[in-house]
Order: sequence, then C-alpha cells, then structure tokens
Amino acid sequence: MLGLMQDAPLLLSGMLEHGARYHGDQLVVSAGLDHGIERLDFRTLAQRCRQLASALLAEGCRPGEVLGSLSWNHHRHLEVFHAVPGAGMVLHTANPRVFPEQIAYALNLSRARWLFVDPDCLELAERLAPDLEHVETWILLARPEDMPATTTLPDPLCYEDLLASGKADWAWPSFDERTASTLCFTSGTTGPPKGALYSHRGSVLQAMAVAGAGVQAYGADDVLLVPAPLFHCNGWSTPYTCPMTGARLVFPGRELEPARLLRLIVEEGVTFAMAVPTVWLSILEILREEGGDLGRLGRIVTGGTAPPEAMMAELERDYGVRSIHAWGMTETTAMATYSHIPPGTPPADRIAIRARQGIPMQGSEVRIVDDEGHPLPRDGAAIGHLQIKGHWMVRDYFRRDDVRLTDDEGWMETGDVATIDSAGAMRITDRSKDLVKSGGEWISSIDLENAAAGHPDVLEAAVIAVPHPKWQERPLLLIVPRPDRAPTAEELRDFLATKVAKWWLPDEIVFVDELPHTATGKVLKTALRERYAKP
Amino acid sequence: MLGLMQDAPLLLSGMLEHGARYHGDQLVVSAGLDHGIERLDFRTLAQRCRQLASALLAEGCRPGEVLGSLSWNHHRHLEVFHAVPGAGMVLHTANPRVFPEQIAYALNLSRARWLFVDPDCLELAERLAPDLEHVETWILLARPEDMPATTTLPDPLCYEDLLASGKADWAWPSFDERTASTLCFTSGTTGPPKGALYSHRGSVLQAMAVAGAGVQAYGADDVLLVPAPLFHCNGWSTPYTCPMTGARLVFPGRELEPARLLRLIVEEGVTFAMAVPTVWLSILEILREEGGDLGRLGRIVTGGTAPPEAMMAELERDYGVRSIHAWGMTETTAMATYSHIPPGTPPADRIAIRARQGIPMQGSEVRIVDDEGHPLPRDGAAIGHLQIKGHWMVRDYFRRDDVRLTDDEGWMETGDVATIDSAGAMRITDRSKDLVKSGGEWISSIDLENAAAGHPDVLEAAVIAVPHPKWQERPLLLIVPRPDRAPTAEELRDFLATKVAKWWLPDEIVFVDELPHTATGKVLKTALRERYAKP
Repeated sequence: MLGLMQDAPLLLSGMLEHGARYHGDQLVVSAGLDHGIERLDFRTLAQRCRQLASALLAEGCRPGEVLGSLSWNHHRHLEVFHAVPGAGMVLHTANPRVFPEQIAYALNLSRARWLFVDPDCLELAERLAPDLEHVETWILLARPEDMPATTTLPDPLCYEDLLASGKADWAWPSFDERTASTLCFTSGTTGPPKGALYSHRGSVLQAMAVAGAGVQAYGADDVLLVPAPLFHCNGWSTPYTCPMTGARLVFPGRELEPARLLRLIVEEGVTFAMAVPTVWLSILEILREEGGDLGRLGRIVTGGTAPPEAMMAELERDYGVRSIHAWGMTETTAMATYSHIPPGTPPADRIAIRARQGIPMQGSEVRIVDDEGHPLPRDGAAIGHLQIKGHWMVRDYFRRDDVRLTDDEGWMETGDVATIDSAGAMRITDRSKDLVKSGGEWISSIDLENAAAGHPDVLEAAVIAVPHPKWQERPLLLIVPRPDRAPTAEELRDFLATKVAKWWLPDEIVFVDELPHTATGKVLKTALRERYAKP
Repeated sequence: MLGLMQDAPLLLSGMLEHGARYHGDQLVVSAGLDHGIERLDFRTLAQRCRQLASALLAEGCRPGEVLGSLSWNHHRHLEVFHAVPGAGMVLHTANPRVFPEQIAYALNLSRARWLFVDPDCLELAERLAPDLEHVETWILLARPEDMPATTTLPDPLCYEDLLASGKADWAWPSFDERTASTLCFTSGTTGPPKGALYSHRGSVLQAMAVAGAGVQAYGADDVLLVPAPLFHCNGWSTPYTCPMTGARLVFPGRELEPARLLRLIVEEGVTFAMAVPTVWLSILEILREEGGDLGRLGRIVTGGTAPPEAMMAELERDYGVRSIHAWGMTETTAMATYSHIPPGTPPADRIAIRARQGIPMQGSEVRIVDDEGHPLPRDGAAIGHLQIKGHWMVRDYFRRDDVRLTDDEGWMETGDVATIDSAGAMRITDRSKDLVKSGGEWISSIDLENAAAGHPDVLEAAVIAVPHPKWQERPLLLIVPRPDRAPTAEELRDFLATKVAKWWLPDEIVFVDELPHTATGKVLKTALRERYAKP
C-alpha cells in the first residue's frame, strides 16, 4: 500500500529557489575577480540563473545534453552550475588544473557542444580548442567590458550578453529526479580520468545530509569560505547547502595563498571555512610570526588528507576553532564520512578521534572486507578493503563499461584500506594498490611514510612494494632529504625502529632529489613502481 | 540522461539502523512507566525492533496490512513505531485522547487486525473491543509480570513474549519508498476524523529537513524531551531524527504536569524540549514562585498555538532559553514551518519574529490566495487562504474519496488564513472557517479573541460570525468571565476599542458560564454557531 503523500521530484532548482525566497538577502561573495569583489544576493542569483537557463534553451541547448565549463569559483560559474542542471541539462565541470590532454579527453568523451570559459582560463582554452571535437559555442564568463580584444577562439559569446537575453520570470521544469546534473572527472593516477555522473536526487540528499544537524550543521548566521572548486566534488556541496540553509558563500577564487585566505577570513567575518590541512598549517605559521587572530572563525572542515593532531589542537586551544575532518572522493559526490565525537568523550581524546575519517551520514554505509570480499569485524584492529554504499555514491563510471565499480549488492570499492571501530568510526590506513603485502600481512605505505617524514632530515618520503621471493612483497623507502642534510640509511632505519614494527622496516632505502607528482600534487607511485619495482 | 548514482529507496529502517551503528550507546529514556524509568540504548532498540518485526511476520502479519496501536510514549511503543513500517506494514497510531467512537471509527476504517495496547489504556481498549470490527489479536505492551490477572480482551498476547520469539539478526526488507508507513487521524472538529497516510519517503525527507542545520538543528550532544505523542504527527519526527542525529530521546509518558516536566528537564539534563506554550507558562510560574532553573536547557520548540512574546522574552532573558516556534498539522506529517531569524536582525526584533509561524523548510513551499485562488502578494499585509506543498504534505485523505485536499497544481488547502512578508515569513491570522467576512473585509476571530482575553476580567473568549443583512457577517463575542468578576459589554467594548479597528468591534457580546470544547481542548465553534449564529 502506497502512502497518500504529495509526490514531487527532488530537484536542485528547488534548493536555489528556496534560497531566493527565504534567504533572499544573503550573499554570494566573489573575491577572486580582477576587477574587485562582487557581492550578489540569493534573490538576484536565482533570477540570473533563470535568465541564463532560458537563454540557453532559446539558443538551442537541449535537455539531456552535456555543456562544459572551465572555470574557477565565482558567482558566474555558480550561476552556470545551477542553471544548466536546473534546465535539465548536464554540466561537465572540467578541471583546469589537470594536464590539457586529460581535459580534452574528458570533454571529448562528454561531447560538450558548449563550453563556458573563465577569462582567466582563456589561454588554456585557446590551446585546447584544436583538440576539442564537439565544442561549437564558446562563452566567456565575462562582462562586455572584460571581453578580450583578440582571441583565437571562434566568435566567443559574452556571458552577460547571453544572460541578459533570458527571462527573469522563467519557471524551472520538472523531471525525473534521477536525471544527471553534473559530471566530474577523477584526476586519475592510473589511465585516463574517469567520470562521475551525479544526479539531482543524489546531490539533493547529499546536501541535506552534509549540512545536517550534528554533521557540518551551518545555518543562516554562518559565513562560509569555500576554496573547494566547483569542478571537484560539486564544491563540497556548498552551491546547494548555502541556498538551503541561508549561509553566506565566500569564494576566494583561484589564488589560495594562506595570507590572502587569512585576510578574507577576518575581513569577511568567516565563521566556517573549508581547506586542506597544508593551508591551515601555513595560516598558523603566519599567526605565530605576525600575531593576529582568526576573527569570527569557529569551525573548519579539512579534507584531502588526514589533519595533523598538533594542528587541530593548536587551532582549538589558541583560536577556539573546532576541526571537522571530512573524507570523500569523486565517486562519493562530496563528503562521505566525517569525524564524529560521541557525547561524553573526554576532551583529551577528541583530537585523536578527529584525526580519523569517521562515520558516514544517514543514507550511506561503510564496511571493510578481506581479499575474498568477506566482511571483517568492527573492532578497530582488522584492516580491510573499504567499501561504501548510499544515495550519493556512484554506481558506474561515465561511458566506461569496461570498469566495474560496484558489486551485485551495491557496494562500491573505494580503493582504500581501513579499520572500523566499535563506534563505527573508520580510519583509512592506505590505498589498496599501495599496500605492501609481506608474508600474508599488510604493511601500510602511508603509516611508514608518515613515520619516515617525522625524521628531521627528511623532506618527503614514499613507500612502494617490491617483489620478494620469500615474503611476496617488501617495502622500498624513497627519501628526499631536506636541503643540506644527508641522512644515512642506517640512521633512518634506527629511527623507524622506534616507530613501527620490526618486520615493517624497509630492506632498502633509496635517496633521490625529488619524487614525481600528479597534476594535483599526489606522489605518482605508478612511475616509482615502473622504475624501482620491476620483478 | 539519468545520472549514474546508486539507487536505493529512502526507508525508515535505514534511520533506525544508522542510530544503532553510529550512535549505538545513545539512549531512549522512558520516564512515564509505573515501574520506574527504563533506559535503552539505540543498539538494543534496533535489535528489539528487528525481533518484533520478524515475530510479527512469523505470526502471519502481511506486508501492506495495517496494524493499530493505542499507547502513550515509551520505548515499547517506539519499537512498534519502527518495526511495523520497517517490515513493510503500516502502523495506525490511534489517539487515546479522542472520543471512543472516533477511535472505533478510525480503526474500523483502517481494518487493523492487530492492536497494540498500552496497559494504561487497557480499560479503554476493553470498552472499545465490541465496536472494533476487524481486530483479532490484542498485544499488551507489557512485561510478563505486568500482564493483567483478568481482562475482557480475548487472549491478549504479552508484548515481551512476542518480541522474544523474533530474530535479532533479521534483515529489514527493501521496497518502494512511497510505501505507506504510519497512519494518523485528525481530531476533526467537523465530521468524522480524517486519516493522513504517511510514506517512508515523506517521513525520511521530513526528518532530514526538520533536524537540519538552521532549523531544529540538534545533534548527538543534545537531550530531547518529547511530550509530543507518537500518535500525533509522528511524534514531531523525533523517532527518526534521534537515531539519525544521535540525540537522546526522553519520553515523559502520559502525565505532563509542568512540575514533573521541570523535574525531568533538570534531572535528565535536557537541552532541547518540545511542548505547547501553556506548559512553558506554567513552568515559568513555578520557577518564579519556587526559584530554581532549567538546568542545561538551551532551546525549546513550541507548537499548537502561537507562543506569547512575553513568555519567549522571559525564557531567553532569565534562563538563556531560545524559542523556536513551529507550525504544522496532521496533513503536513509534522512541522511545516518554523520561525527563522534572518541574520542581522536586531535583538529587539527577534521575539516578534519568533511569534510568527515563519518559513517552510527546503522541500516545501507556502503561498496565500484569495477566494478565487489567485496568488496574493508577499507584502506582510495581504491576508489570504494558506496553501502548502512539498514532500511531506498529504495529497488525499485515507479512504475518503469524497474530500478533495489538493488542487491540480498540488497545493494543499490548510484551512488557515495568513499573511506572508517579503522575507517569506508566514503569520496565521485565523482559521478560514472562523473568519468574519464583514462588508467584503476579513475580521480575524483569533485576533479579536486575543484582544478580549487581554482584559483582566476575562477568563476565555470566543468569536463567531453571525449573519447580517447589510454587512453579510458581523462578529459575535462570547465571554467567560473570571470567577467573581462581572465585566459589562460597554467596558469590554471600550477596552477593545483601544486594541482593534473600530469596524471590528462586536455588535453583540454574550456572557456565558463556559464554552464547549473538543477532546483536544479546542473551542468547538460549530456548536457555538449552531446555537448563536442561525440566520
């Protein structure tokens, strides 16, 4: 027997219009533009989105087709981000930070005919243009006065002119809530980038969960600093959560120097900020050297890598700033788990809990399994392959029928290995492919790297598995020494012996001048294995 | 083009199991039981729900069928509340407070074969039994030692024995998220009660929205006092929001004397409490007379009627307790709107904003229309019929094809009249059917009653419309004087002239000893109209 409730689809345009109607005076602050800070209220934002959407349809864009963008964060990109999916089309947010051939590969795969280009990405777009097989229409996210005098792009449209041709009172269409909304590609360390095709339903539910009570829990009195790019994981869902909750959205734009972010935090009255741990480490360094404070900042969300405990402790003790450690990946839309502090936890234990990746939000689930796929206990000790399921997890990659991401029960492989404790808190110990499997036991390359990086002479460390006739695999440690330091293998091995189990100690330590990295700054272990781990 | 996201239904069992897995140590506190307070953690709660659900199916209950309950709030009723819908059946929560013939009418309409009975409702159930056409199996929500020695109910089952026969590791089934979950009847002042058949989807989305950031926004550090009965509006969604957020749930049980609630607030460390304004007025009176404080209480939600501004001001000023004014009705599952304070509102203006019914949560929408159904402006002045739509609004009444609740566009008639201001905040001015339409203008019976009730000699006031040859309708004011007071019509009219417009002044004032009330305490205006407003 079905209930007798009203049945309307979960659509992203509903979140935007909610912001316009009930938090209409709240602002989107675009701080990264050449001509200065622009402030736009949610009422005007929604109106401009309606104008843009109706203009695109009038120009011949069709519901279901993919449009591309190549842009940093500001209100114009945000408008594209809402207008395209709201009208029933799909926005492919290309990542200007990856290699041009990866951008071209992705845009050719998505067959985008229209491409929105940040004036700041004009040169990149000009370079890409000959390789983009489907792009017919180029739109520069600019005011008429900012249009370039010359460009090799064929007849680019001016965004503001296009928008002005649309209808402010246009009404958003209704359609199946499972309709695709945005398309985001992994930065992929192995093979070509893979696309995650998000849906309205998944994105709405993600936004409701992520901003929810006890999770990130921000409201209309909050001012969010969002360096997280719209082209990655939907900007950590903030384009949706801000209109939903009425929180202010401050986009710092492209340049993310810590000193500039610090200034924005104070000047804009930021209460809640999102950034990777290295940014906070640098900001703390500035504050230690130059004095000052963090203004109204009360909470931060860190992601990308586990936050150092000392950093979280300093932020809380000296500046009253509480850290939330979030974990997610392209395949989980945005945040998948967060560091939850159970009530009654002694203050002294809280920082350590915040260093874990934590628990999933309601609507999703995690588990760990062994190599054969059998579930492992939640005892905080068993290490297994992390699997995840839920409304905002990807089922299959975009146009990649050759890759299987989820099993028959709907569990998605994350490619990470982790422990889960009895309170359900998850801790990632390594990437599956980076594990060293020695004598049937697992050695975490991350834990070993972190231990080595603690040595005062070490700038950077990387661990890979090398084949071994008896133990199957053994760890090889690569070390980049700090300038003017020359640690020996013996010194390092003695140092590590105080930090890790004896059987974890690397048989071989190699000193190098630098390590290869991906475009997004991760150590490129495939290249290291290619060079050092050939059997 | 559909997204490539995992597709799982939104089911209530998911919220329960989330609580068990990630907030497993949190408690449900049942304080209203004869044998003392019982405390049950969420892990055990979920296990007992699984046992109950599997036992019911083993006993022959079938997915899709309706089971009934007649009970106050405690963990056993909560278990029934989760287990029955979780297994794909529907729980009809009968209201023990309405007239027995209304209970029988509703249970006969829903055709419940099984009825869960609170031992405290045993006598009522015995009286009802001969009139219940479909009930075959009676289950007393009791431990074996609490089973009655004699009862006229035929072979009632002991709840704990039934539960013990079930399987703790049973897995919840998956089904269409639009499946009916609970059935709740209006207390209906006109005609027989009407049933609202809630769905899993609507209830999950309601819970996510109501506990959301900026709305009620409670988390795992909160302790909720929930006098709101499970048999009305899903207990204000707390059976779902608490497992979802990890907040503690304290059920005071049947008896809701203010002194007892005050003691529970302090003793149980309640941080967030829900109750109607009269309860808070009484609690404030106790505190003024006897001293003391409200312990850890930080926020309250009031509903049922608009909270007096003086009460909210006193709670905030003297006890640091912030008020959230919530509004909803049986047809909106639970809360539909709440008093939202826009950022930057001067402190002096906040109380007045909290007295309004406020804005809807994301996922729902309100509007006002004139008698012909044309939308009226959001200017804070225009008064119109309040309509509402959204995921948690009822579309049609249960087995009442003769009543139309929503129009072709999906707008539901609330039966209220209201204003909406430019910030979207709604203020209810009257029930549509209680309005006095005088010379083409509307007089709010509520505003006129409130004005009259402000006179020191007045205990209770009611206003109804009486037919008038020239003005179409004019207000008639009925007054119950305070004991030993005898105000005159002239005194009252002079007093009202300082409060309302001259053309609102009632032509006639009638003094009575008492006013007729419904079972739930509302003035029965149908009876007044029957007696005083015949043309």
